[in-house]
Amino acid sequence: MQITPISPECLAHSLENLRKSRPLVHCLTNEVVQEITANVLLAAGASPAMVVAAEEAPGFTAVASGLLVNVGTPTPDRLAVMHSCARSAREHGRPWVLDPVAAGGMPWRDEQIRSFLDDSPTVIRGNASEILALAGLGSGGKGVDSTDSSDAALEAARVLSEKTGAVVCVTGETDYAVKGDRAVSISGGSEMATLVVGTGCSLSALVAAFLAVTDDAVTGAISACALAKRAAQIARGRSRGPGSFHNEYLDALYQIQPADFLGEEA
Amino acid sequence: MQITPISPECLAHSLENLRKSRPLVHCLTNEVVQEITANVLLAAGASPAMVVAAEEAPGFTAVASGLLVNVGTPTPDRLAVMHSCARSAREHGRPWVLDPVAAGGMPWRDEQIRSFLDDSPTVIRGNASEILALAGLGSGGKGVDSTDSSDAALEAARVLSEKTGAVVCVTGETDYAVKGDRAVSISGGSEMATLVVGTGCSLSALVAAFLAVTDDAVTGAISACALAKRAAQIARGRSRGPGSFHNEYLDALYQIQPADFLGEEA
Amino acid sequence: MQITPISPECLAHSLENLRKSRPLVHCLTNEVVQEITANVLLAAGASPAMVVAAEEAPGFTAVASGLLVNVGTPTPDRLAVMHSCARSAREHGRPWVLDPVAAGGMPWRDEQIRSFLDDSPTVIRGNASEILALAGLGSGGKGVDSTDSSDAALEAARVLSEKTGAVVCVTGETDYAVKGDRAVSISGGSEMATLVVGTGCSLSALVAAFLAVTDDAVTGAISACALAKRAAQIARGRSRGPGSFHNEYLDALYQIQPADFLGEEA
Repeated sequence: MQITPISPECLAHSLENLRKSRPLVHCLTNEVVQEITANVLLAAGASPAMVVAAEEAPGFTAVASGLLVNVGTPTPDRLAVMHSCARSAREHGRPWVLDPVAAGGMPWRDEQIRSFLDDSPTVIRGNASEILALAGLGSGGKGVDSTDSSDAALEAARVLSEKTGAVVCVTGETDYAVKGDRAVSISGGSEMATLVVGTGCSLSALVAAFLAVTDDAVTGAISACALAKRAAQIARGRSRGPGSFHNEYLDALYQIQPADFLGEEA
Repeated sequence: MQITPISPECLAHSLENLRKSRPLVHCLTNEVVQEITANVLLAAGASPAMVVAAEEAPGFTAVASGLLVNVGTPTPDRLAVMHSCARSAREHGRPWVLDPVAAGGMPWRDEQIRSFLDDSPTVIRGNASEILALAGLGSGGKGVDSTDSSDAALEAARVLSEKTGAVVCVTGETDYAVKGDRAVSISGGSEMATLVVGTGCSLSALVAAFLAVTDDAVTGAISACALAKRAAQIARGRSRGPGSFHNEYLDALYQIQPADFLGEEA
Repeated sequence: MQITPISPECLAHSLENLRKSRPLVHCLTNEVVQEITANVLLAAGASPAMVVAAEEAPGFTAVASGLLVNVGTPTPDRLAVMHSCARSAREHGRPWVLDPVAAGGMPWRDEQIRSFLDDSPTVIRGNASEILALAGLGSGGKGVDSTDSSDAALEAARVLSEKTGAVVCVTGETDYAVKGDRAVSISGGSEMATLVVGTGCSLSALVAAFLAVTDDAVTGAISACALAKRAAQIARGRSRGPGSFHNEYLDALYQIQPADFLGEEA
């Protein structure tokens, strides 16, 4: 597989577009991370909306800029709404992101997650254990945490991408956005992010936001990863633990400017 | 319309009463902002309780000091509980606040929101787009964000107040509490508050808290707005972005004393 | 009743074990505190998982290290899942903690809470008003807040422990873990914790985490209390209000090392 880093100019351009157009992201996410997901989008320069009722959600997807489906706390009712919205996204040409939380750990959940592959997600964003499991190559994580490194899931990402047609974004110490044989990568970030619930889930929302302002889903996915990694790195330098990290992360997402990506190695 | 600023003495008196009686606010709010809503009430000096089951919620409203109904993530089940509680509030003489989140944007939601007007809310608290929509004069916001200024909604607030008998509290750069021809205003605050999810929703909860300790709903509503605006202003001066703003906002709500309102122009 | 303080060596040992084995805690908790519950577990060194669907939750309990059942926002559907998981915990020999939020205040809720006593909780963790009510000796709190001191509930804790066979952990200015005639205590902490929603609820989750790494439930419960109290004390010294307290609390949970408990009076 051909792995290339993402160019600084490209990242700067993506963020500039995000800030200009402030895309509206329809978030169907789990019970635990709704607040941080909204706050990450707001801090970065997008606009979140959690519209969850079957009566109005699919219609809302049609007018939003992008959709997030995160199955962290699935129930049959919520899954039905998520499917309706995913189909609405496809019908109305809106990009949508699937976050297959804890794939590989529980059979009922796995069945539910796999059923979303038929709704043609634009991007599937997960950790290594989740992507390995979805590609049929893994042994499952521990709860929602990954027990594999993102490098180990690169081949699984390729398989899953070819099977589904989606860009597969596998995140960890290095983040990859994979489309068939092509992979783009970004390194950095901070392990402290794994001690704040919702940093991964909200990254998937951020991917949906960037998809709305980039021409190509590989670029959109990796732009979100790059912004998140950069913000995490800044936050780590300013924090003493996961409590302060959380705030510094939001502050950094807000402070980072397009030009900050220029003049350095990606 | 006659617009008067609120007197510093009146604000000091309201906050003194809040701190003394620590009103218990029954919050039926959306999925996204439950934590910040509880924390805002606690920091300001009130006591939050989220009691949501049909089996116990209406009975709880009857013994609480005030009720908040926020329709940010409405579902048929939750709406039914909200109606039961609103009716319980009316029957037991408890003040209640309607927060018509995203009114004007989606037809099913608008129908649901309008059905609450028959339950005689004490106060309707919304942004300009929401109040314009509810009064039948607007064109809708973008998701949950207002696309109109609060000044532009003043006439709509009057119309809605006359139609419903409620005090209409329209918030933005300047906040207004409108009852028929009478409007009371407060300016200040910080735009940074719009980058933290739930600052508006929790303000509605704060209105419910102040209604429980003030004789008149115009005073109650604008006292809540004044406390929130003052806290936001202090927080803005101490923060670098929306992450630190969130904490500084809670700290400021806790630190502000009644006497802080005296000796300055409102 | 014989009350002994917990030994520093014992606390150090418990925390060491927690950090080593990073127990996976299955949290079935209320709508308001899911994020802080997850973050408290992560900061302290445990791994949270909120698996809520009837289709997968009981199976997940069977493989988790411990279970939390918090009835803060009960609904019939969620209560049914909680019962299934509590039974699964019992069957599979997993420790589980019942947090009887607002017991004593509302008849339907009390009935629901009492029905969990048949599922043999390992620990019941509540404030004084809740424990008094569950033991049939109290008059109820104000919403979710305690109106009694933990000392006043010590006899109730003994009664409840003998009735149920559970360790009863009653928390307040002093925290007690009571098993029949034996009580272990820890003092300290900060009242500021009562102004941050979920500090009590997340303490119950922390109890579940420590149960998984200690031989005896009295030790597990009081180790969690001791860590929380120590973190709250550190946080109080570093914060200006409940916003900064929240972050400093998480930071302190992360920073505290086993050795920090040694060389001082417990």
